Amino acid sequence: MTDTNPPSPSRRSLLGWGGAGLALGAATAGGAVALAHGNDAAPADPGAAVPFHGMHQAGIATPVQDRLHFAAFDVTTDDRAQFVQLLKDWTQAARRMTAGHPVGEGAYGGLPEAPPDDTGEALGLRPSRLTLTIGFGPTLFERFGLTDHRPEALIDLPKFAGDNLDTARSGGDLCVQACADDPQIAVHAIRNLARIGFGKVVIRWSQLGFGKTSSTTPEAQTPRNLMGFKDGTRNIAGTETDRLRKHVWVSEKDGGPSWMTGGSYLVARRIRMHIEPWDRTSLQEQEDIFGRDKGEGAPVGKAKERDEPFLKAMKPDAHVRLAHPDSNRGATILRRGYSFTDGTDRLGRLDAGLFFLAYQRDVREGFIPIQRNLATDALNEYIQHVSSALFAIPPGVRDKDDWWGRTLFSGEA
Amino acid sequence: MTDTNPPSPSRRSLLGWGGAGLALGAATAGGAVALAHGNDAAPADPGAAVPFHGMHQAGIATPVQDRLHFAAFDVTTDDRAQFVQLLKDWTQAARRMTAGHPVGEGAYGGLPEAPPDDTGEALGLRPSRLTLTIGFGPTLFERFGLTDHRPEALIDLPKFAGDNLDTARSGGDLCVQACADDPQIAVHAIRNLARIGFGKVVIRWSQLGFGKTSSTTPEAQTPRNLMGFKDGTRNIAGTETDRLRKHVWVSEKDGGPSWMTGGSYLVARRIRMHIEPWDRTSLQEQEDIFGRDKGEGAPVGKAKERDEPFLKAMKPDAHVRLAHPDSNRGATILRRGYSFTDGTDRLGRLDAGLFFLAYQRDVREGFIPIQRNLATDALNEYIQHVSSALFAIPPGVRDKDDWWGRTLFSGEA
Repeated sequence: MTDTNPPSPSRRSLLGWGGAGLALGAATAGGAVALAHGNDAAPADPGAAVPFHGMHQAGIATPVQDRLHFAAFDVTTDDRAQFVQLLKDWTQAARRMTAGHPVGEGAYGGLPEAPPDDTGEALGLRPSRLTLTIGFGPTLFERFGLTDHRPEALIDLPKFAGDNLDTARSGGDLCVQACADDPQIAVHAIRNLARIGFGKVVIRWSQLGFGKTSSTTPEAQTPRNLMGFKDGTRNIAGTETDRLRKHVWVSEKDGGPSWMTGGSYLVARRIRMHIEPWDRTSLQEQEDIFGRDKGEGAPVGKAKERDEPFLKAMKPDAHVRLAHPDSNRGATILRRGYSFTDGTDRLGRLDAGLFFLAYQRDVREGFIPIQRNLATDALNEYIQHVSSALFAIPPGVRDKDDWWGRTLFSGEA
Repeated sequence: MTDTNPPSPSRRSLLGWGGAGLALGAATAGGAVALAHGNDAAPADPGAAVPFHGMHQAGIATPVQDRLHFAAFDVTTDDRAQFVQLLKDWTQAARRMTAGHPVGEGAYGGLPEAPPDDTGEALGLRPSRLTLTIGFGPTLFERFGLTDHRPEALIDLPKFAGDNLDTARSGGDLCVQACADDPQIAVHAIRNLARIGFGKVVIRWSQLGFGKTSSTTPEAQTPRNLMGFKDGTRNIAGTETDRLRKHVWVSEKDGGPSWMTGGSYLVARRIRMHIEPWDRTSLQEQEDIFGRDKGEGAPVGKAKERDEPFLKAMKPDAHVRLAHPDSNRGATILRRGYSFTDGTDRLGRLDAGLFFLAYQRDVREGFIPIQRNLATDALNEYIQHVSSALFAIPPGVRDKDDWWGRTLFSGEA
């Protein structure tokens, strides 16, 4: 029987992955694509590959993909060398998966007597714009002698009004954000990283997002959240180099550790929506609460979604008014959130809402002042923050010899 | 401010839904599309509308869509007339949503002082091949004087070897299967049906599926389950009229109640996969367990996925061997399962697996003998059935005056 032989290259599975070869070639060419993640906002082929290498990690300024699988991990090893090796192994796996290849060198790698190098459920599927973005949580810096390297900006988030956090799905030593246009590709990536990490890290909590609620491509149709409103109309676009530099990317002059140059900070919040009472609220009240109309998404008193909002025309507790940079001394964040639905609770209510993901240069000038200002948000009657985490997002992997976290662990920026 | 006026038809939201008008027109034409669900296996535009009217409900022989939201409901009203009105209201909402329209007559309907008729998160999205398929569980027949109408075939499923069922997410008086190529469309549909049913029904449990694991279009690429294997290679195709008639559709000569003619029976089983031990199993063992090779999906000893399996070449406890019709006196079911990932459990293990959905003319000649034969399946070491339900699927809604369940509640077949 054929199963005792290594897979032959004529098998359909190999053909299925073959189309991604060029993309990997382009990515490993290195410097030529180094800037790609800062200005890659072209309308994308949903099946294509996104370059893995660059100054910044992909998955931040990259045009937002349709689906998400986000995982927070806890470290279970005390061996620094073993952990560094895991980061290198993860980087190599991420490099291959984002290019549309299985984790192993062969179609599913290795000998019949060994477990496959890849779990296989993505065989035959396209790269689907998969991006994998790693982050380091505050607790990681209590390990491996990293205390002195913890960035000042990687604070412990304060408690906010209305928080009702489940510690079991908050925090984490590490995170990986997997975004793709095909959810099977995102789930496959997280699963394979967890598998590679067996005995060294364990998933602390994870979240699937079935639909993006923000766009970083202003020419695209603005997506709607589960309250039925357009969200992220004035989000930072992947093409806005100046706004990205000002609000998202960490630079040397920030006074942070040099290992973070080119990185960012990610706030993740699971925001449960009280769907049922919201659905029984009048259209007028819904529009008053948001400060936009529901159909077009135009700010109060304006005709078009992208018209400049006149904040004083809105109610004082309108969401858009309180969240606007003009109400927060210019504080601006890059949003990349996703809608989630995780079944129903014991009362038959949908456990649904927004998994909020926001990138910024410094949370003390981004998420924190905005979230504090939202203490009086009229929306608070219909939402509750139930999970929270903050991660330092290291810079991008520059070339085929580089790896996630090198600037932190090897001391070279 | 504009918000005190009803939405104007020039708003973009209306334009977004406009493209679906023709599809609704075609669907409401009635008889002309009555057979569509039996033989609609053309490679489909993933954004198009599937006709709602027909002899059979859509969502069974329809080419399998990419995403699923499945909900089981319990009835909370004792008023038969109120429940019948709900079925009519649901039918009208389903007719509109499957055609790509919001639930209400306007863009989001009604007056500013009233809650919107539609929750809004699907505004601007295409119909995405949404199908909505209703089913009646055994417990429904304990209500509304329906005892005598319970089909003999709608049995209480027996306990199977290895079952570890959570009663809180098993059973249900009703179910609705929402399938679509865009998950936001499927989630929107279930949410709006639950909203319309407020005070009459409540969601008992629900399940999202992010990737189909079966195809009913044999010319398409066979999808893979989360064990990395191709699944459903020999599934009943939507074009196989004879096999559908023999194995899926209830006919008058079955001796069942006439109200079920043109209907079917649906078994739903949430099958948790023990992902982590599976991923540490050798390729050889994985292939022995399935009876197929992992890359191509060919049966043991054969070269191609669609080659006729030689069952005796497989191990006696191989999954394909035990599930094959030749091992079950011809028992054949139409599979429509989806992969799920619902985060992690307390031990950091992925709560992932297969949400198995199978349609058949009679479970006593379909799922039951097959599942009994799988008692010795080598796969059982890596899976566990944790939820179970059986529903009678009534015939299709024939035209714009018909409604879900009319043949049961009005006594006219």
